[in-house]
Amino acid sequence: MIKAGIVGGTGYTGVELLRLLAGHSGVELTAITSRGDAGKAVADMFPSLRGFVGLQFSDPKDAPLDQCDVVFFATPNGIAMQQAASLLDAGVRVIDLAADFRIKDVALWEQWYGMSHANPALVAEAVYGLPEVNREQIRGARLVANPGCYPTATQLGFLPLVEAGCIDLDHLIADAKSGVSGAGRKAEIGILFSEASDNFKAYGVPGHRHLPEIRQGLARAAGKDVGLTFVPHLTPMIRGIHATLYARITREEDFQALFEQRYADEPFVDVLPPKSHPETRSVRAANTCRIAVHRPQGRDTLVVLSVIDNLVKGAAGQAVQNMNLMFGLDECSGLSLVPVLP
Amino acid sequence: MIKAGIVGGTGYTGVELLRLLAGHSGVELTAITSRGDAGKAVADMFPSLRGFVGLQFSDPKDAPLDQCDVVFFATPNGIAMQQAASLLDAGVRVIDLAADFRIKDVALWEQWYGMSHANPALVAEAVYGLPEVNREQIRGARLVANPGCYPTATQLGFLPLVEAGCIDLDHLIADAKSGVSGAGRKAEIGILFSEASDNFKAYGVPGHRHLPEIRQGLARAAGKDVGLTFVPHLTPMIRGIHATLYARITREEDFQALFEQRYADEPFVDVLPPKSHPETRSVRAANTCRIAVHRPQGRDTLVVLSVIDNLVKGAAGQAVQNMNLMFGLDECSGLSLVPVLP
Amino acid sequence: MIKAGIVGGTGYTGVELLRLLAGHSGVELTAITSRGDAGKAVADMFPSLRGFVGLQFSDPKDAPLDQCDVVFFATPNGIAMQQAASLLDAGVRVIDLAADFRIKDVALWEQWYGMSHANPALVAEAVYGLPEVNREQIRGARLVANPGCYPTATQLGFLPLVEAGCIDLDHLIADAKSGVSGAGRKAEIGILFSEASDNFKAYGVPGHRHLPEIRQGLARAAGKDVGLTFVPHLTPMIRGIHATLYARITREEDFQALFEQRYADEPFVDVLPPKSHPETRSVRAANTCRIAVHRPQGRDTLVVLSVIDNLVKGAAGQAVQNMNLMFGLDECSGLSLVPVLP
Amino acid sequence: MIKAGIVGGTGYTGVELLRLLAGHSGVELTAITSRGDAGKAVADMFPSLRGFVGLQFSDPKDAPLDQCDVVFFATPNGIAMQQAASLLDAGVRVIDLAADFRIKDVALWEQWYGMSHANPALVAEAVYGLPEVNREQIRGARLVANPGCYPTATQLGFLPLVEAGCIDLDHLIADAKSGVSGAGRKAEIGILFSEASDNFKAYGVPGHRHLPEIRQGLARAAGKDVGLTFVPHLTPMIRGIHATLYARITREEDFQALFEQRYADEPFVDVLPPKSHPETRSVRAANTCRIAVHRPQGRDTLVVLSVIDNLVKGAAGQAVQNMNLMFGLDECSGLSLVPVLP
Repeated sequence: MIKAGIVGGTGYTGVELLRLLAGHSGVELTAITSRGDAGKAVADMFPSLRGFVGLQFSDPKDAPLDQCDVVFFATPNGIAMQQAASLLDAGVRVIDLAADFRIKDVALWEQWYGMSHANPALVAEAVYGLPEVNREQIRGARLVANPGCYPTATQLGFLPLVEAGCIDLDHLIADAKSGVSGAGRKAEIGILFSEASDNFKAYGVPGHRHLPEIRQGLARAAGKDVGLTFVPHLTPMIRGIHATLYARITREEDFQALFEQRYADEPFVDVLPPKSHPETRSVRAANTCRIAVHRPQGRDTLVVLSVIDNLVKGAAGQAVQNMNLMFGLDECSGLSLVPVLP
Repeated sequence: MIKAGIVGGTGYTGVELLRLLAGHSGVELTAITSRGDAGKAVADMFPSLRGFVGLQFSDPKDAPLDQCDVVFFATPNGIAMQQAASLLDAGVRVIDLAADFRIKDVALWEQWYGMSHANPALVAEAVYGLPEVNREQIRGARLVANPGCYPTATQLGFLPLVEAGCIDLDHLIADAKSGVSGAGRKAEIGILFSEASDNFKAYGVPGHRHLPEIRQGLARAAGKDVGLTFVPHLTPMIRGIHATLYARITREEDFQALFEQRYADEPFVDVLPPKSHPETRSVRAANTCRIAVHRPQGRDTLVVLSVIDNLVKGAAGQAVQNMNLMFGLDECSGLSLVPVLP
Repeated sequence: MIKAGIVGGTGYTGVELLRLLAGHSGVELTAITSRGDAGKAVADMFPSLRGFVGLQFSDPKDAPLDQCDVVFFATPNGIAMQQAASLLDAGVRVIDLAADFRIKDVALWEQWYGMSHANPALVAEAVYGLPEVNREQIRGARLVANPGCYPTATQLGFLPLVEAGCIDLDHLIADAKSGVSGAGRKAEIGILFSEASDNFKAYGVPGHRHLPEIRQGLARAAGKDVGLTFVPHLTPMIRGIHATLYARITREEDFQALFEQRYADEPFVDVLPPKSHPETRSVRAANTCRIAVHRPQGRDTLVVLSVIDNLVKGAAGQAVQNMNLMFGLDECSGLSLVPVLP
Repeated sequence: MIKAGIVGGTGYTGVELLRLLAGHSGVELTAITSRGDAGKAVADMFPSLRGFVGLQFSDPKDAPLDQCDVVFFATPNGIAMQQAASLLDAGVRVIDLAADFRIKDVALWEQWYGMSHANPALVAEAVYGLPEVNREQIRGARLVANPGCYPTATQLGFLPLVEAGCIDLDHLIADAKSGVSGAGRKAEIGILFSEASDNFKAYGVPGHRHLPEIRQGLARAAGKDVGLTFVPHLTPMIRGIHATLYARITREEDFQALFEQRYADEPFVDVLPPKSHPETRSVRAANTCRIAVHRPQGRDTLVVLSVIDNLVKGAAGQAVQNMNLMFGLDECSGLSLVPVLP
């Protein structure tokens, strides 16, 4: 039984982790911290967990996190970089669902995240937790940087093309649409029901923090820098990301076969048949990424459609997948979730 | 391994049954029929099931239903009453998710459903599949009439009071609100997104088919006829029923204790603490009914709030619960579902 | 040209007032105040008003409110009771969209609203601004207390029955459902899109502030106190209230005719034909209340369905209607709005 | 008073035309036809119109359409091309909201729409009703082809760049998102609430009928053919289109100034300040198109964001704008609509 702790369990990635871990037969939930809600039963805040989670939130300073085998940080950016070291020193493995360890170039990270990094050495050690790229390194990792939601959907959609070297890498376009839960469980006007419902908008067009993360991942696959235009949008649904990706072909390939072969052995990437249009609900509440490849009118521009549930494959589910790898469990343990449709 | 068949697998109760049975370790899906979609892979119609359901829809006349241990009818009303007998004769147990066997008074059924009943004898035999009332009879049943969605939420909310005989039985009021999936997966204008979204309305106020079903259940508990005003409403969400129930107190009780004791041993009924307001999302995609009891301002009118997921406890989940009972499995097999929130 | 000011223009009733007044040919918008957003162009906060509203928010202490003919308070409760007197002294008429002057019994108000009242004398003077009841008094009023949203829908639905004295006044039930904009434009977790979408819940069942307001209105019509159970619910739509009202018949009447006659001359109350089910979207963005009366199965319980747009007839539209009356304009000026459907 | 008729008034563009014409002081609604609903009061089908529209639907063969000054076709594709000629012969002007007269290349039209064209001569005569391009020709037109919704949003977003000749015309990308009302008021499974809600998907990626229409418009502006990748998506909201447009810069310009100058005199195109993100709700129920121009990270790819209400500027509102031009009215008559927000 793996003893798991969660730091910052009151957000959407936190409650989703709780949902997944509560249904994971190899895990024992040991501690959940929340500065503001210490002493409150988790199931009082999230009645969906009544009967499944008996824990109370504990104050971070009292929680027995160092007795866990693994601790998940479901905190805002800037927390894990301060607390991970002491846990690692105590022999605890750490999975950070925030962005503290995702960007290898610390100066670049500091520029996009607007703070000084507290532990650059751990950035160097951390493994970027995209199993479809780094499976072996994750198995041996003490510290995993769990990818962002947009970066997961976007990288999985571009990777086969980038690795094959058959597209123009200087002008990639990712037009991505996210459900509102991607903005977190924060008291902000802009994500109120009456603001976000029956409405659609782009945001962060001048620059979004997931841009350098995606570029880093694609550049590593390409072996050189890539140029990317990334436009995120907010769409009135709770869960789901739909990334529509555009790339100019520079060398002919059987693109459908390319995708099918790249992901043939991947348990959580499903390449759809030609002419398919994946819907976000087809992965709702599950850890799957579904992808379709199109070449409209046979022209020289490819269109890749990639969907995930931002809270599962885009956050908590991928974190559990990483935990399974780190502890030698079946990679799918606790993640054989049939999507909820309708 | 229980071999299970589904007649009429293309509606929402059908796909929900598939979701639940695909995750049930004691069941092997053997056949799914659809007259219109025979030959089509189930996962082509419902991509959420890719990787979980490998079956194709088969034509009803070709399907090996009589080799199943249990057959679920997820059909429109009027089908199961014609086909159940031959299956029962072949030793197959039958669970009807439609209304064919719910109303014991066949004349009353014919009046509300507008057709002649094809098999009144089976109506007499059928057990009404509300485990919280008929658990023992269900265990021994060949034929179970799975309750309607509104009747499940409403009866579970009224039953403790009716059984205790402490309310005015002539003037019960059930003001019920349903998500749109309750109307089924039918090509109808009224349930289009652009009609049902950002909108709220009552419907069927002069009379709704679930009225006689609820009255029958409450009358049986009361030992006499009851008077009920039942007003269903359509609310812009996919899943969920919220029943707000009103009853005049005729004898003082500790009403909170009454509910807690009535459901103390029920695995799928959760009585919330005083002053609670259950949300439909707290049971989304799970088989739980959550109930709260209020007595506003200490006046003589009780308010009971009862929520279920109409496709789970209100349909497919309750059907699986009944199957578990009929076959001697753990009642919760395949139903330990953590609700999906948010 | 009536010079109009708005105190507190950054909430939903504020922006709705702006929408309506911008389209009102007899009104000149003169000042809008906001402590937090002084100096900001209104159209920068609400781009929907670009080209229609050229004003900036001004600081309350600088705004030329005393040069207005009328000032609307679209503020939280407790502001207008402090500021109305000086405006009235300056000859400005005041319409308060908050609750400060709605309840004649000041002690009762203080109990429900949790604060001391700053100006009980003005409570005595204020006219409750429900034109269907108080049209003549409104015409002569200096200070109008604009009704709450639930109270508008509920009173209009009950009034014909209460005035006719044909129902049991001790056991009225109002089961009301509101869109989320009714909760205001406030940064609160509970009304986030990801909390309120695809979800339905009751709230405030032990007691809601609109209860005493509704009881006061019905009691005045009845000439005696009334007993009311009031249960509000939150439904996942932006605008709209649907009140489902239940009353026990004590004397036979032609109830349809009773409603039609009561509202025959009302420009903003539309009694639908028998067996109708009004939808909230049928009044979206308009000042109309639509009502239907049912007597299910001919039993002794009446069901009245009453719908309004909570931001129009339930707030800003009714305020404009009151302004029209106070200034001798056509009652419908600026309010001939065709509902937006779909 | 212009006498106006509508052929096919039961769809969403029909009811939106009714909403707009009912509020247009220069128009008298004379006839509305519907084969299936002849004899039914329009306000019985659309209760939002009670009190505003007193007409009944009439059978097409009985309707006095030839006595109208203008007839709008709000019909499926293929109707107007059969009926327009006889109306034009009778001196009636015609505005077709369907696609029959939009594509000048009849063979291309027949290929995309899958039918033979009944009246190629009228295709040649028809004026494409995008006032921002063809204002003068519209004024003198007998027959106007009202643009599609995607084409309106997309062309308005690309036109300044195409006309200026400063982008790569061979690789334009339009990633467009539409509310569900764009799919019409048809009984189809795919646009049910329970299918389209809480879901996001692309559709028609291999080819959508609006592609040749957009290409035609851009090619005319460019003076040569253009290459366009067009990907439409369905987003869970009722109204609104958000087009996100991508273009490679081939010549430096002050792009913000370019847009502002191009639309300086346009009453219904609003160029937002730099760094803006237009929301679809900011134009809800109004005839405005709002546009923002971005150049992320100063790279060589421009991003244009363009939003409209698909039923107004994308259909009925633009049709009224065209009617105003054709009859010498103020172009904004009946269209000074303040968007409905929230």
